[in-house]
Amino acid sequence: MTNCSLNKAYYKLHSLSKAASILGSVQALLDWDQETYMPKESIDIRSQQIEMIASLVHRDKTSKTFAKALAKLIDLPSGTILDPLLSDSQVSAVQNWRRDYLQSIKLSNSFVKKFAQTTARAVHAWQAAKECNDFALFSPHLEKVILLSRKKADALGFKDHPYDALMDIYEPEMSSAILIPIFAQLKTALTALLKKITLKKPFNDEFLYQNCTKDKQLNFANKILHSMGFEPHVWRLDISNHPFCATVHPRDTRMTTLVHPENIMFSIGSVMHEGGHGLYNMNLPGAHYGSPLCEQISLGIDESQSRWWETLIGQSFPFWQHFYPLLQVEFPHQFGNISLAVFYQAVNAVKPGFIRIEADEVSYNLHVIIRFELEKALIDGTLKVKELPEAWNSKMHSYLGITPPSNQQGCLQDIHWACGYIGYFPTYTLGNLYSVQFFKAFEKAHPRWQEQVAQGSLDFISQWLKENIHQYGRQYNSLQLCQKVTGEGLKQDSYMNYLTTKYSKLYDC
Amino acid sequence: MTNCSLNKAYYKLHSLSKAASILGSVQALLDWDQETYMPKESIDIRSQQIEMIASLVHRDKTSKTFAKALAKLIDLPSGTILDPLLSDSQVSAVQNWRRDYLQSIKLSNSFVKKFAQTTARAVHAWQAAKECNDFALFSPHLEKVILLSRKKADALGFKDHPYDALMDIYEPEMSSAILIPIFAQLKTALTALLKKITLKKPFNDEFLYQNCTKDKQLNFANKILHSMGFEPHVWRLDISNHPFCATVHPRDTRMTTLVHPENIMFSIGSVMHEGGHGLYNMNLPGAHYGSPLCEQISLGIDESQSRWWETLIGQSFPFWQHFYPLLQVEFPHQFGNISLAVFYQAVNAVKPGFIRIEADEVSYNLHVIIRFELEKALIDGTLKVKELPEAWNSKMHSYLGITPPSNQQGCLQDIHWACGYIGYFPTYTLGNLYSVQFFKAFEKAHPRWQEQVAQGSLDFISQWLKENIHQYGRQYNSLQLCQKVTGEGLKQDSYMNYLTTKYSKLYDC
Repeated sequence: MTNCSLNKAYYKLHSLSKAASILGSVQALLDWDQETYMPKESIDIRSQQIEMIASLVHRDKTSKTFAKALAKLIDLPSGTILDPLLSDSQVSAVQNWRRDYLQSIKLSNSFVKKFAQTTARAVHAWQAAKECNDFALFSPHLEKVILLSRKKADALGFKDHPYDALMDIYEPEMSSAILIPIFAQLKTALTALLKKITLKKPFNDEFLYQNCTKDKQLNFANKILHSMGFEPHVWRLDISNHPFCATVHPRDTRMTTLVHPENIMFSIGSVMHEGGHGLYNMNLPGAHYGSPLCEQISLGIDESQSRWWETLIGQSFPFWQHFYPLLQVEFPHQFGNISLAVFYQAVNAVKPGFIRIEADEVSYNLHVIIRFELEKALIDGTLKVKELPEAWNSKMHSYLGITPPSNQQGCLQDIHWACGYIGYFPTYTLGNLYSVQFFKAFEKAHPRWQEQVAQGSLDFISQWLKENIHQYGRQYNSLQLCQKVTGEGLKQDSYMNYLTTKYSKLYDC
Repeated sequence: MTNCSLNKAYYKLHSLSKAASILGSVQALLDWDQETYMPKESIDIRSQQIEMIASLVHRDKTSKTFAKALAKLIDLPSGTILDPLLSDSQVSAVQNWRRDYLQSIKLSNSFVKKFAQTTARAVHAWQAAKECNDFALFSPHLEKVILLSRKKADALGFKDHPYDALMDIYEPEMSSAILIPIFAQLKTALTALLKKITLKKPFNDEFLYQNCTKDKQLNFANKILHSMGFEPHVWRLDISNHPFCATVHPRDTRMTTLVHPENIMFSIGSVMHEGGHGLYNMNLPGAHYGSPLCEQISLGIDESQSRWWETLIGQSFPFWQHFYPLLQVEFPHQFGNISLAVFYQAVNAVKPGFIRIEADEVSYNLHVIIRFELEKALIDGTLKVKELPEAWNSKMHSYLGITPPSNQQGCLQDIHWACGYIGYFPTYTLGNLYSVQFFKAFEKAHPRWQEQVAQGSLDFISQWLKENIHQYGRQYNSLQLCQKVTGEGLKQDSYMNYLTTKYSKLYDC
């Protein structure tokens, strides 16, 4: 084939894929609307709209036309690129298209439907079980979800462990072989650090839980968002029950938060977290929209961006050097008499608790590791669903030193398993690990970042993230990107160094 | 065929049609979002989303599968129903499906695309022309729109006048043969009444244009909406540049308004207007969703509902007997010293002006008749586009006694022609005529309506509208519905009686 005809083939494939992406963007908007402005009683028609669009996306992505266009550029069985004239990024795009295509045809329509119905019922049961603190209401449903997830893993295929097939959905090319040693080291180091800290006198952080007007909180969070480097008129921030970021299109990013009048750090933390997701979405290269080159790599990399802003920046001293005086002006009654040093301590107070989403930086990944170990065991059958509550509590006791008083505050706290999201949890910790590894590279490029941040400048940070991470879309997978940006593979010691340095100093231990 | 197999055929047709309706509802939501919450710079991807969904809707509505399912129930060429076992409403649904199908296949995809592109450019040019008050910027585009509209009329087919084919899109079964005599009588009567009124001393209405806080205006408008009989959690009211009502689904009605700080009657009038559309949408029979039995009959009937609430109720004395004291409590500084009688006069002040959407009840339909006469002449070629400004101004002078000082305030004021909406304008006046004819029937059923409204009760009105109009969807066309509800055909004298009675009393003339 000539270069020209190949470009035509690539263009054809891209435009087919773009149609599916546009439909997908409509679905993202329907999801966003459902959580923000949709009248409550419209849920029936909304479900029908989402089901309809989802089925059209699936049809487009698995169509014969699509397969034919793809097969002109890559040999589907072997993955051999059929022409050397494709650019590096085009090769990567085609490989990703093949990966996604082969994955999507492995699951039959009837299986996808059954999985959706089973998890919909499971979510319903989980809500009731959590409300009534009654694991028995959920367990028969969870058994079905685990069974189907195992079937899903078999259909998707795996080398070592069925869990790998599931994790691969959220974190392509990640495997338990890579994760197990890293998580094991992390667990040892984290439990040791946590033990040291909990021997010290706890920080006073009561003043963080005073009443702060909702509107003022939202204004303050918006101020931070604006300084993070968002372009004007391509994003918005709304209110929903659970903060999220809907990535409709690089030119249409919709973040949400929730404002608790008596927990100002929740709105600030969640807005910076979603802002990190949002910047990633905004900075994807729009010219490649509809191709993998304008898609996020994985949940892990996506989470590295949100945790970067929420924790590495939003819980850093230089950040508050600039923003704390502004916060004091906004809320003089609440913070006027609290020094920056004391405020900074409170924002970083370490307190092992039962709930993952409320966890401090040191405890957080232990929560994730518990879920990782348990769901892996559920999938390979070494743990039965009925044994879950006890296994959960025992791990909580052993890693965090506390035992949940109820399943509500234990194995019933998260929605993920009810949704069938097995293999999702590790991406939270991967996000933390990647964020710190990336940050080391960022520090080399901007050795005086602390001074700049202390002066209120944040957009040079998003510029660095855009140039080093966002602009590539899925040209590299997460492991490759990590190597490219940091010169190292995925590992836990950078993260542990970060935590140990920060918290040894804070707690003088 | 047996009854059972026929029901199966009807069910099949309904479910095919429902798929298109669900996609259509997604498009309505995209439109709504574009005008309310969409970040400005997202317009490109939004256009692509809307184009994609619109083409899917068109594909579904013109598919061979759909035609085959339809042809099992009705003979497509002749319109003969193929089985007498269908219920009356099913027969009507099938006839409407046939009508819509035959209409949609008359226009080729390439024509539809060309029309869309031409009107998109025309809208762009119209905006510039209006801004610069330069008709020459718009006229070459309008010429193209008229030419294509004439082609559209030829493709759709007509008996008497090409205009009828275009009007039929918005008002099925209406024709210029029916309209011409009615509009002629109306014009004579309206100009006579207007002349009489303008000889009288104008009402003082300056106090309506005092500054009223936006939030309070919106609260007040919301209070009215709530009392109009909306069910909870199936609707919302937002802000947009031009008030509209997006009818996503009977369980998802989204109205918008615009609040001018110095024109409180604008927000009240527009909210009641859109509320009228909204109630019509909400009260369609959801069980028939996806079939013509859950669709609005025509723009004229839809407008009869909005004008009913905006004018027949919202500009009535009993309405303000209840709501004016509440308005005075809300805005004591602005209205505390103005009596109800004076306020009622101001709300109904008649002042011929240049702008249709700002017109009083007496002038309003003269604006419409001018557009009707001009667009009919443009389509049949008796008026050239370049002659439009002069023709416009001359009719304004002759019917309303005033001459626009500029095309901006003359023939460039409305977006309709740029959009290619030729044949749309008459539905505004049809709405007014139908509203009053329906109202006469309503008064028979509720002879003491004035007392009830004066006590703040409004929901009995929407109940009557639901039972007599909304619940039927498109089972009857507008002329049939008028006959069924009022026992009479469409005519202008009920409307003129209403106006004459009301304004003779108000102006003592």
